[in-house]
Amino acid sequence: MSARTRVLTGITTTGTLHLGNYVGAVRPCIEASRRAEVDSFFFMADYHALIKCDDPARIEASRLQIAATWIAAGLDTDRATFYRQSDIPEIPELNWLLTCVTAKGQMNRAHAYKASVDANVAAGEDADAGVTMGLYCYPILMAADILMFNAHRVPVGKDQVQHIEMARDVAQRFNHLFGAGQEFFVLPEAQIDAEMELLPGLDGRKMSKSYDNVIPLFEGGEKALREAIARIVTDSKLPGEPKEPEGTALIQIFDAFATAEARAAFRAELRAGLGWGEAKARLFDQINGQIGPMRARYDALMAEPEKIEAILQAGADKARAVARPLLDTLRHAVGLRRFQPLQAAAAPAAKAKVALAVFKQYREADGQFYFKLSAHDGRVLLQSGAFAGGREAGEWVKRLKTEGAAALDSALTTARVGLGEGVAADEVRAALTALVDAAAA
Amino acid sequence: MSARTRVLTGITTTGTLHLGNYVGAVRPCIEASRRAEVDSFFFMADYHALIKCDDPARIEASRLQIAATWIAAGLDTDRATFYRQSDIPEIPELNWLLTCVTAKGQMNRAHAYKASVDANVAAGEDADAGVTMGLYCYPILMAADILMFNAHRVPVGKDQVQHIEMARDVAQRFNHLFGAGQEFFVLPEAQIDAEMELLPGLDGRKMSKSYDNVIPLFEGGEKALREAIARIVTDSKLPGEPKEPEGTALIQIFDAFATAEARAAFRAELRAGLGWGEAKARLFDQINGQIGPMRARYDALMAEPEKIEAILQAGADKARAVARPLLDTLRHAVGLRRFQPLQAAAAPAAKAKVALAVFKQYREADGQFYFKLSAHDGRVLLQSGAFAGGREAGEWVKRLKTEGAAALDSALTTARVGLGEGVAADEVRAALTALVDAAAA
Repeated sequence: MSARTRVLTGITTTGTLHLGNYVGAVRPCIEASRRAEVDSFFFMADYHALIKCDDPARIEASRLQIAATWIAAGLDTDRATFYRQSDIPEIPELNWLLTCVTAKGQMNRAHAYKASVDANVAAGEDADAGVTMGLYCYPILMAADILMFNAHRVPVGKDQVQHIEMARDVAQRFNHLFGAGQEFFVLPEAQIDAEMELLPGLDGRKMSKSYDNVIPLFEGGEKALREAIARIVTDSKLPGEPKEPEGTALIQIFDAFATAEARAAFRAELRAGLGWGEAKARLFDQINGQIGPMRARYDALMAEPEKIEAILQAGADKARAVARPLLDTLRHAVGLRRFQPLQAAAAPAAKAKVALAVFKQYREADGQFYFKLSAHDGRVLLQSGAFAGGREAGEWVKRLKTEGAAALDSALTTARVGLGEGVAADEVRAALTALVDAAAA
Repeated sequence: MSARTRVLTGITTTGTLHLGNYVGAVRPCIEASRRAEVDSFFFMADYHALIKCDDPARIEASRLQIAATWIAAGLDTDRATFYRQSDIPEIPELNWLLTCVTAKGQMNRAHAYKASVDANVAAGEDADAGVTMGLYCYPILMAADILMFNAHRVPVGKDQVQHIEMARDVAQRFNHLFGAGQEFFVLPEAQIDAEMELLPGLDGRKMSKSYDNVIPLFEGGEKALREAIARIVTDSKLPGEPKEPEGTALIQIFDAFATAEARAAFRAELRAGLGWGEAKARLFDQINGQIGPMRARYDALMAEPEKIEAILQAGADKARAVARPLLDTLRHAVGLRRFQPLQAAAAPAAKAKVALAVFKQYREADGQFYFKLSAHDGRVLLQSGAFAGGREAGEWVKRLKTEGAAALDSALTTARVGLGEGVAADEVRAALTALVDAAAA
């Protein structure tokens, strides 16, 4: 592994992008990819797109438009690794290897799947009505996307944090089953951009296609941009009347494209009575000054798709240069090896017994209930705080035993459970994974 | 498609083979592959092996031994296409495409999964305890194995018939969603070898490792074969006493390797008082006369695994020459296309409305209940017989509506339902699949 931090960003390939996507995702991700210490992987998640979209023309158009958008917006495709998921055959193969070591119970607990089940049950339908295996298996493919490149960090929304936990969990199980001390996979960390800029839309609510309040990024050209800006909702103050800019959609959108000086100057003009129509013309100039050159590049790229194709093929080559050796190692680890003379000791060796960690529940002199998890050498890995009842303590133990590492974060954050002194969370994860595996064996 | 029938045979790659496997599977499959009208594909199902086995040394050894066995037993690898599943990256990719069009409800009804759930529930465990996603998703990978090569026939045991039905079902759904009239996939037929020879083991029960009554095929050489034969259970009649051969394990095993003349002669000798010891020596000679030359080839192959490797690489090349063009077609169909200028009409076209077939339940003058399925043009696709109660008829309608084509065979065989006059089962399957899709949309 390089000393640089590998950051992997998945890009949805359904639909086209609006100004809010640009400000909230495209621009910050491209900026982050320029940092010296970062090794960026960007992929178009087109296998995932197939889960929800069976319209081939839409898949085709969106992939092309979104690839052109990222390149036009300044992604340095020489520096970053930019590829289509579907150009990496190693990913679906890893997907199967991971499928074989993933517990079905874990998939049952995935939020997106559970939400579908809840909706079905509430509607009196069969729990799995309308649920495809694509939706259900999605977290495993996502784990393959991440683990295939040993990404350290994955920028995601809050709704995706559980999937990163699942990727860590399946990585640990694979390491544990086949590693014999070797760690094949980096355990990825979710990077939640809490301060991600959320651009308001025309009506002041978050800019979103579902609210029909978006300003297009490139679609429709300057004309569409100008027309959308004209429809930004303002109050009805006349030119000459002082206007309070703070909190308006117009000023927030302006801010996203302006320096501190320009922001202050624009506010001063509005407070001095600048008319809304004029203000919107300034906003258009401000945005178009930055977006305009990108749009020109975008249009040029869209006219020559073979150039984008060549960029993505080069990206796939770079990505596969990372994926192929790792997959070869993994294939060897599970036994899918080139034929060679068998070792004399080819007879199945008894699996080395792993000394498992042990849960203990107990009651203290204070009458309260506690539990702890001890390593085979006696060190305390986890120590709970006091529970008034034994049942609550017992339920946490049961959950940690059955869900393993996937339940650890909840235990640490929502229950009164802490790591033992000097113990790293990863050691505890590994111990919990080993317990779950032993129970399943 | 060639005019020849393509027959695809999956070979399990855990463990080694015994004489019963040879007589029951290897020999008949090899014989069948020699027929002029047959285009045989044989693959070692090593991705499937990973579901149940996490011992890499065992996976490695078994793959090699079983490949050597089939070649030594006479499989013509120039004529047949003989490959390892894990050498065909197109298979896991197709697996994902099929995953996206498979309903989860269908997987819930798979026999192997249901058996695990039943066992868990009976034991008071969580329904999915110990169930991996590999076990759960297995039928989709099997569908990919079959559909990737457009196999017409798949020889399987009775427990696998449901999986062939599922492969047909997912093929139909894919054809329906993306085909626009084009049929990408042949609908495979299960070929159940009812008359498959079941060799008895040493104790007269079916030869099986789980009964510990097997005669090894090559393992241990002549010595092991002779010793195993010596342990075949007989009665205690002495040399000179007449013996009734019919029904004995010894004569059944002899028959599997003998001509009609040799069978008659051996029976006559036993009835004339041939001793069991002498009879076993004859049996050994009979078997070893056929197995011995194969064993010599097997030993030579095992000493030079790189020769087997070369054969399988050549097989993979042949298999991929079939798989690659089909996968390219499928990728194009779902929208995973090389970038090219978008059509002016790239805007998502409204999906063509399919004129769906319609179920109708009714009561006749005889007071009995019936249902039928009519095509959009009024033709009767399915016609039920009489049901005493409306509920039973309604349940069949519901099942056909929700399970679609998967329920058709049951309806035809176990309920009083028949195909409309001049209607092919495949048309009814397609109509049922369309109904299920429309309900899920």
